[in-house]
Amino acid sequence: MQSHKLPIGVFDSGIGGLTVLKALSETLPHESFFYLGDTARLPYGIKGADTIIRYAHQAAHALINKGIKMLVIACNTASAYALADLQISFPDIPIIGVIEPGAKAACHTTKSKEVIVLATEATINNAAYTDAIHKINPEIRVLSKACSMFVPLAEEGWLTGHIAEAITREYIEPLLIAQQGIRPDCIVLGCTHFPALLGTIQSVVGTDITLVDSAETTAHEVKRILVAKQLLNDATTPGRYQFFATDVPERFAKTASYFLGHALSASQIEIVDL
Amino acid sequence: MQSHKLPIGVFDSGIGGLTVLKALSETLPHESFFYLGDTARLPYGIKGADTIIRYAHQAAHALINKGIKMLVIACNTASAYALADLQISFPDIPIIGVIEPGAKAACHTTKSKEVIVLATEATINNAAYTDAIHKINPEIRVLSKACSMFVPLAEEGWLTGHIAEAITREYIEPLLIAQQGIRPDCIVLGCTHFPALLGTIQSVVGTDITLVDSAETTAHEVKRILVAKQLLNDATTPGRYQFFATDVPERFAKTASYFLGHALSASQIEIVDL
Repeated sequence: MQSHKLPIGVFDSGIGGLTVLKALSETLPHESFFYLGDTARLPYGIKGADTIIRYAHQAAHALINKGIKMLVIACNTASAYALADLQISFPDIPIIGVIEPGAKAACHTTKSKEVIVLATEATINNAAYTDAIHKINPEIRVLSKACSMFVPLAEEGWLTGHIAEAITREYIEPLLIAQQGIRPDCIVLGCTHFPALLGTIQSVVGTDITLVDSAETTAHEVKRILVAKQLLNDATTPGRYQFFATDVPERFAKTASYFLGHALSASQIEIVDL
Repeated sequence: MQSHKLPIGVFDSGIGGLTVLKALSETLPHESFFYLGDTARLPYGIKGADTIIRYAHQAAHALINKGIKMLVIACNTASAYALADLQISFPDIPIIGVIEPGAKAACHTTKSKEVIVLATEATINNAAYTDAIHKINPEIRVLSKACSMFVPLAEEGWLTGHIAEAITREYIEPLLIAQQGIRPDCIVLGCTHFPALLGTIQSVVGTDITLVDSAETTAHEVKRILVAKQLLNDATTPGRYQFFATDVPERFAKTASYFLGHALSASQIEIVDL
């Protein structure tokens, strides 16, 4: 198959990366996608660096073996730890993560130069967002918070209500106190699960704070790279989608709708062993 | 080494099984233990049957290869799915899980013959507790509830406070309503993580409901088997403990204290690759 006809590979520890796939499908409606969720081993966000890098390699390898023209790491934790490694291991295809696009979106959004980053424990420990934001603008003050309960909360489907609100307050309220008169005006949702809780987070922080996630900026970045490398598909028909998971597809299919915006049946998901 | 001098192998998806190890060490102070936590792949409780069975086999295999005289599956989910399989695969050593001991404890405790089982999604789906209780007493009514948020709650260390209480109420209050005048008087904590939340659960349900977990009954069952098979250690010195994990030891060491009752340093934990 000609390179530009190949699908784009997208992988995540589970289903959160479907928010990125959704943005990709809107920006690039004629592209085809392979989406791999490492559902047997999720979540990555509480694991150690070596384990995350090893799992990311296995996932990338599986997708590259199926034939893809580009790889998107649609998981903040895997992007934080494994992007540079994967780019070295697989130099022949463009690989991008979601951290740099998220950092870029935050830098464009903030006026007060005070940004909150909410992410998994592993992503926060690695300081990838702080580094990426400071590479663009070293004067932005970054407040980081590991929100380990957000992933299970989203997976349980408790997206609104008093429990989601109490957990959100517990994590975020201490960060909202103005320091020397300056208050954060932008929150980065630094985990692909977190946009599922967007309504609750916005209601807790108020409408004068903008929530940004990496999905849309990543999609535009993917399009820019495809154009630059002459890999954009010239088809005018809608792209095809193929889903792969490492655990039983039922749970994947059930929770996918929160993230993808439409239902998915278990029969559309193929099990792979990494 | 003579068989009775060998350690007892204990495995869990992570650290919750340390509550079982604690009970074992109290009941069998002269025995040595190998504890393996599959921390890279936890939690098991939201995975599919095939994945759980495969992971349990790998963990059992690793411990048996190190030389043990008995194997305790200190994880309710793995016990529910993999016990029978492991007993067939490794016929030469006694293997027990935590479900039957927990069911036995519940049957001895309940007077109203109305028992609530709280467990992971996978354990509830498999109905292992209901089956085990009905094997002992088919007249007991079992109310089951998957409490998927309890594991991350315990791992986050939010064992008390308004969020732990709100989540506990959300899961349990609907089960406490009396049916035809009969009210549950016993709650089985059917996941080794849940005893960490015992104080909060007890405060929500009141003191007229008894909480039982498998740890102590399992320890007595292990002692009974060792005596019957002439495998009890005749040493009078305290047993030795060796810990193995599949992910970085820092998080294991940090959270272990909630379950084990005393601190553990990262240097006491050896990384293994299953």
